[in-house]
Amino acid sequence: MNKNYPKIPVEISARHIHLSQKDLESLFGKGYQLKILRKLQSTNQFAAEETLDIQVGLKKISGVRIVGPVRKQTQVELSLTDAIYLGLAVPFKESGDLKNTPGATLINAQRKIKLSKGIIIMLRHIHCNPEEAKRLNLKQGEIVSVEIKGKRSLVFNKVKVRVGDKWKLCLHLDTDEGNAAGMVKKGVGYLIK
Amino acid sequence: MNKNYPKIPVEISARHIHLSQKDLESLFGKGYQLKILRKLQSTNQFAAEETLDIQVGLKKISGVRIVGPVRKQTQVELSLTDAIYLGLAVPFKESGDLKNTPGATLINAQRKIKLSKGIIIMLRHIHCNPEEAKRLNLKQGEIVSVEIKGKRSLVFNKVKVRVGDKWKLCLHLDTDEGNAAGMVKKGVGYLIK
Repeated sequence: MNKNYPKIPVEISARHIHLSQKDLESLFGKGYQLKILRKLQSTNQFAAEETLDIQVGLKKISGVRIVGPVRKQTQVELSLTDAIYLGLAVPFKESGDLKNTPGATLINAQRKIKLSKGIIIMLRHIHCNPEEAKRLNLKQGEIVSVEIKGKRSLVFNKVKVRVGDKWKLCLHLDTDEGNAAGMVKKGVGYLIK
Repeated sequence: MNKNYPKIPVEISARHIHLSQKDLESLFGKGYQLKILRKLQSTNQFAAEETLDIQVGLKKISGVRIVGPVRKQTQVELSLTDAIYLGLAVPFKESGDLKNTPGATLINAQRKIKLSKGIIIMLRHIHCNPEEAKRLNLKQGEIVSVEIKGKRSLVFNKVKVRVGDKWKLCLHLDTDEGNAAGMVKKGVGYLIK
């Protein structure tokens, strides 16, 4: 079954941090610019060489990658596994929706900042550009499902479609979702409308 | 939709260890008996007071719960998150199928044993007793799907049914699967045949 469902590339996002310019400078110094480690294919962003530690009370996750370029507001994307480890109640959110989210301390060697909010668990979503959206008959904000095959086959429901000029077709999952589907780093899904 | 699909209780299994009597005695002393911390509702087993550390090279996961009673062979059930952390290639398996599985060092204070095999990532499955199987029209070994609702709604495919006299109806997931569905410790799913 499902042989005619369109293929969707899948990328698994590990925990990462988007910084505002202000927070970047507090952590790395005035006028600091992130160094590009590698470009991310499906969005107009890059994994930076720089990492930070995230601390909540006595719990710490070290070496969390920063993703650039800088944004209007600092946003930390964790998995539920991470949130439970840190002892934080982190809501499932869309990118940029930081209302009622917890904060944490971000640490770069001797420098640190205390966020009052900004930690989210990202709701799964598809990125695509307008041409891809047209070809697949997808609309901005539409909710679809994506099937993953294999030993841990499952169907992700409530996948929101986001259309952007510079994006490339991709289902973005976090590491819990990827692991639950038996998929590490990347793979292929099948669009179900 | 799906309002008439039968409800299935869901339990999330954290990483845990089943020990053979021989391995138990190597780690705790001759004739040792596990102490019951709490009985597990859906199967005829118990979480023991005792925990072990699991070590692979320089990586260690501490305080992993032992589940009793002892079994014929030692079996360690990890999540894919754990396996990646330990740097181990761990296959998805059914309980008891330890062919081509990796081992690790199990540690209790000064005592340790080196397993040559026994680490698996459990394939998702439903436990039930014969009466429940009859009521839900489920057969031993049948493959079904289970839908989870909520913000992280998904449908788990390839759920194998296991019927046992002393079991109680329950879908068993690991922590990656539970987290991917936005479910911690336990919840409810809907059986789809």
